[in-house]
Amino acid sequence: MAAIGREFFTVKTVSEALKGFCPTHLTGVETVGLNDACRRVPAADVHAPEALPGFDRSSVDGYAVRAADTFGASESIPGYLRVVGSVQMGAAASVQAGAGMAVAIPTGGMLPSGADAVVMIEHTSEATADTIEVIRPVAPGENVVRFDEDVAAGTRIAPRGRPLRAQDVAMLAAAGVVDLEVHARPRVTILATGDEVVPPGAPPLNPGQVRDALSASVGALVREAGGEPSPPRIVPDEAGALRDALTGVLGASDVVVICAGSSVGMRDQTAGAVAALPNSETWCHGLAIKPGKPTLLAHSDGIPIIGLPGNPRSALVIFRLIGMSLIRRVGGWTVEPLIGTLRATLGRDLPSAAGRLDVVQVRLSEGGLAEPIFGSSALLSVLTAADGYVIVPEDANGLSAGEPVEVFPYG
Amino acid sequence: MAAIGREFFTVKTVSEALKGFCPTHLTGVETVGLNDACRRVPAADVHAPEALPGFDRSSVDGYAVRAADTFGASESIPGYLRVVGSVQMGAAASVQAGAGMAVAIPTGGMLPSGADAVVMIEHTSEATADTIEVIRPVAPGENVVRFDEDVAAGTRIAPRGRPLRAQDVAMLAAAGVVDLEVHARPRVTILATGDEVVPPGAPPLNPGQVRDALSASVGALVREAGGEPSPPRIVPDEAGALRDALTGVLGASDVVVICAGSSVGMRDQTAGAVAALPNSETWCHGLAIKPGKPTLLAHSDGIPIIGLPGNPRSALVIFRLIGMSLIRRVGGWTVEPLIGTLRATLGRDLPSAAGRLDVVQVRLSEGGLAEPIFGSSALLSVLTAADGYVIVPEDANGLSAGEPVEVFPYG
Repeated sequence: MAAIGREFFTVKTVSEALKGFCPTHLTGVETVGLNDACRRVPAADVHAPEALPGFDRSSVDGYAVRAADTFGASESIPGYLRVVGSVQMGAAASVQAGAGMAVAIPTGGMLPSGADAVVMIEHTSEATADTIEVIRPVAPGENVVRFDEDVAAGTRIAPRGRPLRAQDVAMLAAAGVVDLEVHARPRVTILATGDEVVPPGAPPLNPGQVRDALSASVGALVREAGGEPSPPRIVPDEAGALRDALTGVLGASDVVVICAGSSVGMRDQTAGAVAALPNSETWCHGLAIKPGKPTLLAHSDGIPIIGLPGNPRSALVIFRLIGMSLIRRVGGWTVEPLIGTLRATLGRDLPSAAGRLDVVQVRLSEGGLAEPIFGSSALLSVLTAADGYVIVPEDANGLSAGEPVEVFPYG
Repeated sequence: MAAIGREFFTVKTVSEALKGFCPTHLTGVETVGLNDACRRVPAADVHAPEALPGFDRSSVDGYAVRAADTFGASESIPGYLRVVGSVQMGAAASVQAGAGMAVAIPTGGMLPSGADAVVMIEHTSEATADTIEVIRPVAPGENVVRFDEDVAAGTRIAPRGRPLRAQDVAMLAAAGVVDLEVHARPRVTILATGDEVVPPGAPPLNPGQVRDALSASVGALVREAGGEPSPPRIVPDEAGALRDALTGVLGASDVVVICAGSSVGMRDQTAGAVAALPNSETWCHGLAIKPGKPTLLAHSDGIPIIGLPGNPRSALVIFRLIGMSLIRRVGGWTVEPLIGTLRATLGRDLPSAAGRLDVVQVRLSEGGLAEPIFGSSALLSVLTAADGYVIVPEDANGLSAGEPVEVFPYG
């Protein structure tokens, strides 16, 4: 039983890892234009250079008026106003709205001076060629979007550390902010290790060989988290090869991912290679999670290094849970993403050990059932057959069939 | 009241639009490599060219054995086996596992012929230099991932019409599928209209002008839906300008989005320009939704055309709900995306007319409250302040404070 002792030195829970493993490295700052700004992370708060809107605007099609002129107007006793002109879009009105006057105005038009409200066209009718009947009163400010009602000059319109959403981009555009300082995308180096691993495009396999399933798929999750994956690279099992590879890539990486060999010997080699890096600290070597226990979290000079489990299914589970969160943090996120779930009813019992977090793939059926998919953590088909996953939390002894569960959707 | 009649010819509900507005155009097919395959939509089912794994593999570190040799083994009466060699990763074993023999094997190693199970290293100990003690029996097949257990040759590993997820990419890589046929990204032309609209980077505004807030933000949502937005382009209000622009872009567009002027006159002009296109059909001109009623859905020769409302907030709500769904369909999606939500408690009453769908932006507070953000549909700040939105369905007369609600997260 000698091998057990050396397997996992420092096992941590997933919540400990998500909270406690916080290497200090952050990516630098670069400038992007508006059309490339969505999902990027501002490196500093952005403030509105000027008020929005920059003038009182009509929010309807109608007539700009002095509200007082419409008081008491009704279908039976309409008010009469003289139409003295019309507002053109994109220009200041050339006429004033004096007492007893109306100026035709389209939605979005700039309120002419003198007017303080707009009567909707539906509440008017033409009485003569230059006179309208008003059949409903308006209050001052009615149907008007006031100067600076959307945003006052100097207001923060995008906080640092939260990725920009489509509406944030719209606001920046409206405010005339066309270039902004964002965190650079984390450069994520992915190293696949193992003498049995060959590139996916390799010629027919020899007995015992397998194709590198992780570089492309982990790379896809890197992009989803806002990072830029390195080109795939396979490192042989030879002593020193991993250490040399790590030393070579650290200077040009913001995060390093090792798709580790899964044998005990390979795990030891990964841990040793990482421990030998300058100013390195191994934060944990083993996570209380299923699948994915043989996970290594470390850093060298503040640059995070994740050693993924050797089984592709475990590796993808861990990378989605821990790796993506790390990349976001290195890329300047200061908030957690809002991740929605689907409600379903658990189709079968899910036993689990307390103190361990279980990630269980499920298939969603028409009737709202979440059917667990069981199978070895070596099987990718468990992941590809799944619509999402259920988490059995660390403090639970499993979940029971018929319980309501939250399903994190894949996709 | 003459203006009311001509405003909305054919008002449809949002569910009618999502189900019923199905222009026939689909993008063509192109080939992508694995590293660019995530989120792309296969144009045909993909099948595994060969079985996975391609050989019986050990799922643990241990000894490959004949299971029968371990029957009855226990801590008090261990079985003894002769170690005749070891398996190297990535190669066939050079030895056979005969009766009474064991072959050392790492996780992922290829089972030597003769063996039918693997004893975990933890259940063995060295007895002599070439003999091990086995203290637990294994059943045939135990700790082995069988040939084709993950996927049999010819199995469908990715369906057409469903975008590829990271795990699908992993499976394709494992199976050696390195190029695949996917639908081309829909080319989405975005036309901003209005004499008052200037590019976001324009010099200081004249009175009455506003910056184009929609091209960049709608473009971001286009990308999120898998499409490729056109460079921003602003079309003036002149009669014929929109029709000319539409005629010019249709041939190189898979979807056309018109960020419409919001005045009644501009809406009429959009409808007229669209109706004048070859083989065009206006499917609806008005949606039973708040905000976003002045939405136009049409097609020309099967190419969908969306006329968005003039208010930026309404436009983004409609584009997220209807536009993204259209782009996905044109881009070959045959399934709906799985969109998760967050559970919250509604902080205030939300009155709504039955028969109309309301999209209400909310802020999420620490205690799980969803606080509605009210304000004119002209205000982008309602959207930028929101964490997500609540939908008041068409068949409801509003929702009450204290009700549980599902919040669709932004971002």
